[in-house]
Amino acid sequence: MTAELIFVGTELLLGNILNTNAKYLSEQFASLGIDCYYQTVVGDNAGRLKETFLNAWNRSDIVILSGGLGPTEDDLTKETVSEALDIPLVFDSEAMNRIRELFAKRSEEAPASNEKQAYVPKGCKVLYNENGTAPGVIIEKNDKIAILLPGPERELVPMFEESVKGYLKDISDSVIVSRCVKMCGISESIVGEKIKDLTQNGGNPTVATYAGCGEVHIRITAKAATEKDAGKLIKPIVRELKNRFGAYIYTTDNDVTLEKAVVDLLLANHLTVSTVESCTGGLVAGRLINVPGVSEVLKLCYVTYSNKAKRKLLGIKKGVLEKHTAVSREVCEEMLKGAMLINKADVVVSVTGLAGPDGGTEEKPVGLVYLGCSVKGKITVEKHYFSGNRAKIRESAVAYSLILLRRCILEYFSEVELNFIP
Amino acid sequence: MTAELIFVGTELLLGNILNTNAKYLSEQFASLGIDCYYQTVVGDNAGRLKETFLNAWNRSDIVILSGGLGPTEDDLTKETVSEALDIPLVFDSEAMNRIRELFAKRSEEAPASNEKQAYVPKGCKVLYNENGTAPGVIIEKNDKIAILLPGPERELVPMFEESVKGYLKDISDSVIVSRCVKMCGISESIVGEKIKDLTQNGGNPTVATYAGCGEVHIRITAKAATEKDAGKLIKPIVRELKNRFGAYIYTTDNDVTLEKAVVDLLLANHLTVSTVESCTGGLVAGRLINVPGVSEVLKLCYVTYSNKAKRKLLGIKKGVLEKHTAVSREVCEEMLKGAMLINKADVVVSVTGLAGPDGGTEEKPVGLVYLGCSVKGKITVEKHYFSGNRAKIRESAVAYSLILLRRCILEYFSEVELNFIP
Repeated sequence: MTAELIFVGTELLLGNILNTNAKYLSEQFASLGIDCYYQTVVGDNAGRLKETFLNAWNRSDIVILSGGLGPTEDDLTKETVSEALDIPLVFDSEAMNRIRELFAKRSEEAPASNEKQAYVPKGCKVLYNENGTAPGVIIEKNDKIAILLPGPERELVPMFEESVKGYLKDISDSVIVSRCVKMCGISESIVGEKIKDLTQNGGNPTVATYAGCGEVHIRITAKAATEKDAGKLIKPIVRELKNRFGAYIYTTDNDVTLEKAVVDLLLANHLTVSTVESCTGGLVAGRLINVPGVSEVLKLCYVTYSNKAKRKLLGIKKGVLEKHTAVSREVCEEMLKGAMLINKADVVVSVTGLAGPDGGTEEKPVGLVYLGCSVKGKITVEKHYFSGNRAKIRESAVAYSLILLRRCILEYFSEVELNFIP
Repeated sequence: MTAELIFVGTELLLGNILNTNAKYLSEQFASLGIDCYYQTVVGDNAGRLKETFLNAWNRSDIVILSGGLGPTEDDLTKETVSEALDIPLVFDSEAMNRIRELFAKRSEEAPASNEKQAYVPKGCKVLYNENGTAPGVIIEKNDKIAILLPGPERELVPMFEESVKGYLKDISDSVIVSRCVKMCGISESIVGEKIKDLTQNGGNPTVATYAGCGEVHIRITAKAATEKDAGKLIKPIVRELKNRFGAYIYTTDNDVTLEKAVVDLLLANHLTVSTVESCTGGLVAGRLINVPGVSEVLKLCYVTYSNKAKRKLLGIKKGVLEKHTAVSREVCEEMLKGAMLINKADVVVSVTGLAGPDGGTEEKPVGLVYLGCSVKGKITVEKHYFSGNRAKIRESAVAYSLILLRRCILEYFSEVELNFIP
């Protein structure tokens, strides 16, 4: 069974918005075990939309269209598809009632233009919209299916989850299950080398690597009749990866992020943590606070961006700052020591670096970042050169400070130095 | 002149990655004044790629393909396009030298598989890749153009900027210029009402609104023969919008962000700033530090996530926290006062809220956030209810704290209370 996605909207063609619906729907179809060979973006133009739809309808079993269901003259998807399939539009009073209710909630009357949204292709399944005025529709004709969904993500996603996923599950004869083994502190090329035998296998399950900021994820994807069968195919590969990568793996749970793994490690070892940040300016603390429940472990954190703040709060001597500059191993270590003095956290993380765009020298270029971590007084400082613009350098510094934090805790408790590969 | 974009890659069809190249290239073509009516995503499959390419080649003047230029057997774009256009591939020794150099830099020898990347369609313009091994190519045939670019964004963007943009500018007979008027503290629907006469005009320039987190942007887009002519069309509209929206507008410069506007306001008024954050945990400071040069104004900032940190650092009484809870007008104000005592910043921003997912009550639901701002001792506290998940609530709290900060400074110096609309 094959499906095909069509996104309708001039704003996509002009690059005004990022097509996040494409990623979402593609992932959904992949996990439903339905092959998707084409995605097309087309503007709010009846002729081009009809051509694109008919092309898709002829070559695929299911055509999903998103966008163009609004109340304006520009919104043509329902009208164009109905015409192409030769199905008349009929008034759906339930849809109209719901549109009126939505406006009533805002103490407004539904404008006449919204009446257009209550017309649906005759005999279709209407998907009432809990988050907007445009109903979606499922049309079945000649053993093929067209599904029309609203364009805004906040309307499309809940409608797909509630009304479309179950419908497609019933007609699909297989499921695809993916499991992520997530690693940090190791490069993608080394991971790639070490699992060549698994990635080049090409069978079922498939194994592929994805590199993120400081992280490598290995995704194992299995196709089977049931979720349970797919799980059986995946399990031995996860076991094998655990053997090969050991402590580089921070989770085998799709939903666990690096910051969640770090917070879990702190909780498990009854450790409190504090941060003292310069160029990342609060983003390390901000990322730790992504994790609900972090208040159990997170103590007071500081942003000491200026030299004055470093001196005043952390007691770093003017002479040290002048001799080594703020971006130096010495100051990174002094930041740790200063924070430890005023804040009895078990673990402290410090960051100081040059995020640019200005201020770089030949000796200390933009991208130079020192990361420090102290676990119960045992201090580690790392020197990094990160590439990219200001935002990218700061993002890397945040990611690698979490990786350093994790490694230092593991080393402290295992008393073994982990041979982490940069 | 029309162009059409084709993105080649199974990872896009599976939803593994977001198609950021689509947004980037669409924006580029829009600004070059070249109409783009279709975008297609197709997998690494020769048959489907050929069909998609020929369809595009027949109906458009320019076809851009991105992806599928790698060294593996799966990478088929160059081979498929060459075959479709009946142009043989020839060995380009300059391309091969550059590939070898790239590997030499990493102290590795170029694998035999990379030799494939040095073959290019005969007679084409080769775009050497400074950031990877795959060269791009421009093919001209029968008054049509095919441009093949590598898939990774870090290779595609610089190649487009350096080698493709100028080439296309030379053949395009018009330019499109966009100018953004950016506002905060006003809702999209009110803005929409107030500029109906401009947005429904439909002429040249066009006027459209876009809503971001706490912000509304009005984009004015003009098509003209030269950039100067386009500027002349845009200018009177910008003037009119300034008349209508006054202080809601924080910039009319496309490149200025809200945080940049806030930092500029602090600099212009010789004000130092500090933050004390609970649920946003450093992200307000982090966003201010997006702005290069913020060190002139940013003093020591604090993350006081736990009640203990609030008591210890800010001297907030246990009784106050127990009586009002941490998420209250009183504690938000105490956070300001505490921070002012220990930190002589002219302006202080405080944030305390319930970001969830747990901890909400009927009286204090998840999403309740108090934002505080003090300008030279003049204190303002706002109560907000933000919707969405933990990340969305925190993002909103960060945005609205910057908006509050801006408003409080403007009010302090104008001595007029601005009637900001939530």
